[in-house]
Amino acid sequence: MHSIHQLLIKNLFQAPIQDHPEQEIVYAETLRFTYAQFRERVRRLAGMLLARGVKPGDTVAVMDYDSHRYLECYYAVPMIGAVLHTINIRLAPEQMVYTIGHAEDDVVLVNADFLPLLEQIKGRLDTVREYILLTDNNESPQTALPLSGEYEALLAAAEPVVDFPDFDENTRATTFYTTGTTGLPKGVFFSHRQLVLHTLAGLAALSSNADQGRFHREDVYMPITPMFHVHAWGIPYMATLLGVKQVYPGRYVPEALARLISTERVTFSHCVPTILHMLLSDPKCEQYDLSGWKVVIGGAALPKSVCKAALDRGVDVFSGYGMSESCPILALTHLSTDELLQDQESQVALRTRTGRPLPLVRLRRVDDDGREAPDDDKTPGALQVRAPWLTQSYLKDERNSEKLWADGWMNTGDVACRDASGSLRITDRTKDVIKVGGEWLSSLELEDIILRHPDVAEAAVIGKPDLRWGETPLALVVPKQGVTLPEKGIAHHVKCFVDKGVLPKEAVLIKVRLVESIVKTSVGKTNKVALREMY
Amino acid sequence: MHSIHQLLIKNLFQAPIQDHPEQEIVYAETLRFTYAQFRERVRRLAGMLLARGVKPGDTVAVMDYDSHRYLECYYAVPMIGAVLHTINIRLAPEQMVYTIGHAEDDVVLVNADFLPLLEQIKGRLDTVREYILLTDNNESPQTALPLSGEYEALLAAAEPVVDFPDFDENTRATTFYTTGTTGLPKGVFFSHRQLVLHTLAGLAALSSNADQGRFHREDVYMPITPMFHVHAWGIPYMATLLGVKQVYPGRYVPEALARLISTERVTFSHCVPTILHMLLSDPKCEQYDLSGWKVVIGGAALPKSVCKAALDRGVDVFSGYGMSESCPILALTHLSTDELLQDQESQVALRTRTGRPLPLVRLRRVDDDGREAPDDDKTPGALQVRAPWLTQSYLKDERNSEKLWADGWMNTGDVACRDASGSLRITDRTKDVIKVGGEWLSSLELEDIILRHPDVAEAAVIGKPDLRWGETPLALVVPKQGVTLPEKGIAHHVKCFVDKGVLPKEAVLIKVRLVESIVKTSVGKTNKVALREMY
Repeated sequence: MHSIHQLLIKNLFQAPIQDHPEQEIVYAETLRFTYAQFRERVRRLAGMLLARGVKPGDTVAVMDYDSHRYLECYYAVPMIGAVLHTINIRLAPEQMVYTIGHAEDDVVLVNADFLPLLEQIKGRLDTVREYILLTDNNESPQTALPLSGEYEALLAAAEPVVDFPDFDENTRATTFYTTGTTGLPKGVFFSHRQLVLHTLAGLAALSSNADQGRFHREDVYMPITPMFHVHAWGIPYMATLLGVKQVYPGRYVPEALARLISTERVTFSHCVPTILHMLLSDPKCEQYDLSGWKVVIGGAALPKSVCKAALDRGVDVFSGYGMSESCPILALTHLSTDELLQDQESQVALRTRTGRPLPLVRLRRVDDDGREAPDDDKTPGALQVRAPWLTQSYLKDERNSEKLWADGWMNTGDVACRDASGSLRITDRTKDVIKVGGEWLSSLELEDIILRHPDVAEAAVIGKPDLRWGETPLALVVPKQGVTLPEKGIAHHVKCFVDKGVLPKEAVLIKVRLVESIVKTSVGKTNKVALREMY
Repeated sequence: MHSIHQLLIKNLFQAPIQDHPEQEIVYAETLRFTYAQFRERVRRLAGMLLARGVKPGDTVAVMDYDSHRYLECYYAVPMIGAVLHTINIRLAPEQMVYTIGHAEDDVVLVNADFLPLLEQIKGRLDTVREYILLTDNNESPQTALPLSGEYEALLAAAEPVVDFPDFDENTRATTFYTTGTTGLPKGVFFSHRQLVLHTLAGLAALSSNADQGRFHREDVYMPITPMFHVHAWGIPYMATLLGVKQVYPGRYVPEALARLISTERVTFSHCVPTILHMLLSDPKCEQYDLSGWKVVIGGAALPKSVCKAALDRGVDVFSGYGMSESCPILALTHLSTDELLQDQESQVALRTRTGRPLPLVRLRRVDDDGREAPDDDKTPGALQVRAPWLTQSYLKDERNSEKLWADGWMNTGDVACRDASGSLRITDRTKDVIKVGGEWLSSLELEDIILRHPDVAEAAVIGKPDLRWGETPLALVVPKQGVTLPEKGIAHHVKCFVDKGVLPKEAVLIKVRLVESIVKTSVGKTNKVALREMY
């Protein structure tokens, strides 16, 4: 009996790269490489790491903007059996000390821009043996950090690895830390097998739609979700497997991004709603033609207003769904040819849905007693998932891992409705949902309705304990500058939507309080934990 | 740590079938089912088999034409942990006795048309406990076979299985027997994991091309490669995962196939060249519009003449490559948008190539010393493959299994050239190649050239031992009826192609012998083993 063929990252590296030797990989507006050069650089990077004593199971961390170098690390580090730790470059110094120590990083590849940050904490990075400098120019920066060398020089001197080893497909390939509103960052990790399966199923899902938003062999790809964040949704692996031209933009500067889309003829991207909003609203971006650009939105719900603005500019925008714990993609929204013929308002409603699961993914929605919620697009349920690419636990963190899993299902922490065609619509985070007399009210839905009032600048809705109802909704509302807004006006506005049947009748119990500002987390999300404590 | 998610056929069954309840599955020109009905029928089939004592590891065999019932067996049998044996309904009775016994079939589901065949051999089918009748009408046939019941009646009475069990992904799911020109049929077998991976990678490859020949969510699928033959190339699993309308044609009658393509608006199929040739040349098929029909050709090289005839009818024809031992798909030819703009002759040359490997597949070509042949599209090499979905051995057959594998690579038995863009071109079977003074001559290429002579009806080229050259080519040529054809004329015709640089210079050593007929195998292929013995 021949042994079972292991699913390894190197299987994603071979044929496509060899068969498109002239295909391009572009870095920002400065550098261009061919796939043939990329292949040679990955082989040299692997050789360099081995020569510097990196062994199977060691951890190699990267602190960089989105770059060709990062893509090289996506392959070379796991292909020698080491673990790639993609460091969130936006972490506070204390969180960085924690994650580098917790992941037990042996080697850190660091962009010159982050040297000052590492200098501050270098005395506390006990596990790190070597720092390797990443820089776009050939200058040697002044630094107190003990650098082992510069990436390009080390690559030039390295012996390329031609035959990469075989090993168990369940070998850990990558690690990344997620940050919540409370507590320490939590490590998620993925094996070679999981990344290969995510790549195949993601590609099958992204490419098999008839027309709208599909990813294919003649696209030009540019991520606008950071490469440190769950491998930029794993889409660089899919793009390389397709053999398409790839553009890595470096730092995210709206005008530079818009210019790259236009000059490099980028046709396929993914980003969070705020980045898309920036690209659409920045006056400096107006001169660039974005029509025909396909973009998957994830990380947060796509607001209808942003979706509409994108459609007005000819952007083919649609939603994806996933989380750091799930590698990340779980579901995608694709419109059928018939749906593409509908008017803009209907399309906005479809494109902002959460969509249908990828192949091999099962999503179910349960009530408090574990019963499945009906697929009527009205009844919400706590969303749980099964898939071959979920993190097996939080890294070295039993307490949080126990809460993540229930009966073989992973708790997403989201609440969702589903229609009869299997299309999901996330309505809230589990912990933000408000229970009024046993019925679930979505805080996100209430906020969305309140924000439609012309005099409202910001709004946050939380649950307030109530003797009779259990909880009732409390809306904290920031009026627009210079506007006098009666609290009753907001309550009336909400009631109108109850009368229209848009909101459930429990929503009329809403209380409104005008405030000057709403407290945010470090990454700019509404801090509902703090709000619940305050009110 | 959460356990590793197993890759099981049931993962291919859940979401798509649930989410397209109204989608259709059509059988021949007689029956229509919805996906919702299909789901219920699979659950009942599983319940029926369990109730009749089928246990994990038991083998359930099917003898049927392409049908909705066969699709139901593709899922229900492996999903209860049993093995599906897809019996080649074209086998001779002796071969059938051998394969049913060798596979240790416990239950046989048999179409009424094959009852006479089984009656002949029933005394020798020692392993079979039960026979279940498949029939399109409700009549009870007269038979000496001890039938346990009729499929539809048993399904109607069965208790549906709702939750299918979890088990090891390396559990065997299917078995099929391949027949060569010599020796006993050889069993190949595939696990749940292998079928899931083949489905995902095949779908990613078939769907990710920009335009030409791609398979997508709005296609209508009809196989014209028998469902007993390596799961109709595994494409029914992909079609179900896509959620598309499926048409199963029953017996292959050219006019009925053409009518189904036209009336059911079939857009995607696969078949061997002879079936395509029949559809294009049968006068009864002429009235049906085939334009826009996409068809992948495999099983044998697509002749340029058939490719051209298909293009003339507006058929989007292209080649695939695989073998029974490889689940089967290994490579596909897809044209780029630029290539689609080329003239018909160039397109024919491209569409008849073997193409590029699927994701996770590696194909290499080696000479006698195991050195890789250059990618110059001229130098042939023996084609070897690595992929996660190759049979691990021939079933219970160590002697043949040893010949199948070499150094972790599977020998395909084919000889191929490859160009710099990774596109393969099969030039011969390893055992049919002719070695002239150390150079490899392709018998298929010589036959193709000789067949271009206007007076030639049939041709076969074999190697003949030669003291000086090792081997020289011998062409056996059947002239067209009523034509006097000098042997020298053929030799001169070959020499012209050597002079043009189409054939290597060793081809001028060809000897020509006129014959009245060329001996064939039971499946209509030229029997070169017999020819080499005869001459």
